[in-house]
Amino acid sequence: METYKRHVEKLLKILTDKNLKAALVFNPANIFYFTGTDAPSATLIFEDSRVVSISSRLEYLRAVEEHLIGEVYAFSRATEVAEYEKIIQGDLYESIKKLLEGMTPERIGVVGGSADLRQKLTEKIGPGFQDLSREVSLLRRQKDLDELERIKSAIRIGEYAMSKALNALEKGVTEYEVVAEVLYAIHRNNATPSFDPIVAFGEHASHPHAKPSRRELQEGDVVKIDLGARVQGYCSDMTRTVIFGRVSTKQERIIRAVLRAQERAIEALRAGVKAREVHMEAYRILKEEGLHNYFNHGLGHGVGIEIHEEPYLNAETEAELLVGDIVTVEPGVYMAGYLGVRIEDMILVKEEGTELLTYFPKDYII
Amino acid sequence: METYKRHVEKLLKILTDKNLKAALVFNPANIFYFTGTDAPSATLIFEDSRVVSISSRLEYLRAVEEHLIGEVYAFSRATEVAEYEKIIQGDLYESIKKLLEGMTPERIGVVGGSADLRQKLTEKIGPGFQDLSREVSLLRRQKDLDELERIKSAIRIGEYAMSKALNALEKGVTEYEVVAEVLYAIHRNNATPSFDPIVAFGEHASHPHAKPSRRELQEGDVVKIDLGARVQGYCSDMTRTVIFGRVSTKQERIIRAVLRAQERAIEALRAGVKAREVHMEAYRILKEEGLHNYFNHGLGHGVGIEIHEEPYLNAETEAELLVGDIVTVEPGVYMAGYLGVRIEDMILVKEEGTELLTYFPKDYII
Repeated sequence: METYKRHVEKLLKILTDKNLKAALVFNPANIFYFTGTDAPSATLIFEDSRVVSISSRLEYLRAVEEHLIGEVYAFSRATEVAEYEKIIQGDLYESIKKLLEGMTPERIGVVGGSADLRQKLTEKIGPGFQDLSREVSLLRRQKDLDELERIKSAIRIGEYAMSKALNALEKGVTEYEVVAEVLYAIHRNNATPSFDPIVAFGEHASHPHAKPSRRELQEGDVVKIDLGARVQGYCSDMTRTVIFGRVSTKQERIIRAVLRAQERAIEALRAGVKAREVHMEAYRILKEEGLHNYFNHGLGHGVGIEIHEEPYLNAETEAELLVGDIVTVEPGVYMAGYLGVRIEDMILVKEEGTELLTYFPKDYII
Repeated sequence: METYKRHVEKLLKILTDKNLKAALVFNPANIFYFTGTDAPSATLIFEDSRVVSISSRLEYLRAVEEHLIGEVYAFSRATEVAEYEKIIQGDLYESIKKLLEGMTPERIGVVGGSADLRQKLTEKIGPGFQDLSREVSLLRRQKDLDELERIKSAIRIGEYAMSKALNALEKGVTEYEVVAEVLYAIHRNNATPSFDPIVAFGEHASHPHAKPSRRELQEGDVVKIDLGARVQGYCSDMTRTVIFGRVSTKQERIIRAVLRAQERAIEALRAGVKAREVHMEAYRILKEEGLHNYFNHGLGHGVGIEIHEEPYLNAETEAELLVGDIVTVEPGVYMAGYLGVRIEDMILVKEEGTELLTYFPKDYII
């Protein structure tokens, strides 16, 4: 509860600075950041610190129970409703219009929402809303201690699931069966997965985002496992690559190169550095080994309420790393018909240097 | 492979009828319908029956391996790429523009894509694309025998997972633990879940889309379990509600009312009937019992490549049921702080009548 209150207070400061009367918040992750639930369709935060959410009837009771500050209404055209439902008659836009009664769009900030949604807002309420998406993205990047604790719990559960996955590796086991062990381990720890786990053997690991298949594990296969958990709304993400059985010289050379690229990128990571530079550090190491053409994605991404969020570390971004950022560093090498290798940890950017949040060992022979 | 070929042929007929030279297909489910993979970002289908997909580099190898007809390119600005990558230089829109060289937007159909994406298409290529989304939605609704077989397999695996979930019910078990059993069962059958399973006990079942919690099962709780599997791209969906231990008169009255509403709605379901009428049939039955105010969502939805797709059965829709539709019928009653009851089966609409595809018993005392 204190967490969400602090988040609301930060937003109120932005409203004051920009002389706005309210903020209109869209997208589940933004709404969760201020209320503790992702069930509402929109949340309004007023300059007097009132917090009001609007949800569908379907999500209303969940929204009410999970909403930690303020009140929740359901929007609907239904007239016969349950005694426990506080209904605003109309669709989402009509309900927002009623709650914003008397305010002009020029004095209202909007956070998130698709281009389509913004368009409808203009049509149905009027033009001139102020975009606060960038400001809130920056707030969300600065993780506080409470958020860090949740993420650390999610990382510990991810590591537990990784150990269960590695224990399940035996000749003939299928990718599906290992995914089953991962999901079982996460849920038995009172958590949910932060994304569909990736378990890919041998040549199938060359798909960076492989879907599980009936592929059976064989001697000499690489095994790529990418998984994460979600605890109290916050995510973790990690990848390990191991060789099952005897490792070949070529496999070993590739894995060592990816490991070295990851270590160097982590060393380059600190507050004030361009995210692009950290990506390029890993790219350069892989280039020394002639492997850069097989590194076909960005180096990493922020992790928080969403599994992928700002900042992104890749070749195109202009972003700069900030104190409080929690990012993945995950270089990879993918060769069609042969293998895929990726090693991924989560790192916290601090005032002085960084903190490696993922502890799981990086042994690659199993 | 034959399935996707047939789907492409149906689309080619539409192109001929509308005098179009090509269709530009967006959204994973639409792309899967024509190619057998959801990895590409866009798929072009030309009047001469050529099928060309464009993907990110990240999804390229998966797209190539899963793509059952035609060819795949990756769009990228990278110049140093792997020898196995067929790259078109540029972003998604620039790549589409190159592939459509010489054709005017007026002669090109577009399927799916957000308002934002359509806007960018107009800005970057030109105005005048013809919308074919409705036509393809109608094609997707008419399930053929091969699609029906996949859906039946997904239903059987869902039923197996449901039996595992019911077997796991014992005093003190948590919702998370039962979800663990469900996901384990689905993956051990070489399938993935079609959505995050819902397992909710007692008052928590009053959230129609409850998220799993540490809530422990107690004597006299209702247990609501909603789950589904995905097999070769096609989904299943089912819900059962049972009472753990001794059932109260009130619980029994509510469950029997929901059961009766479901039966009557299924009886009302047939080709040519308005989807709204089927919804209202269930609503009327619940109204007879004074429970209609607690039925706060639509009666059902189509199921296919997506877990929720056309047609929707609710109070607002204008849709009419067609031969080949596969829909859920799932009335529910949700009382804050007390219980939630939902019973859901999948039904195929045939030339003559319907076929109940879900076989799992509806006993409600366990």
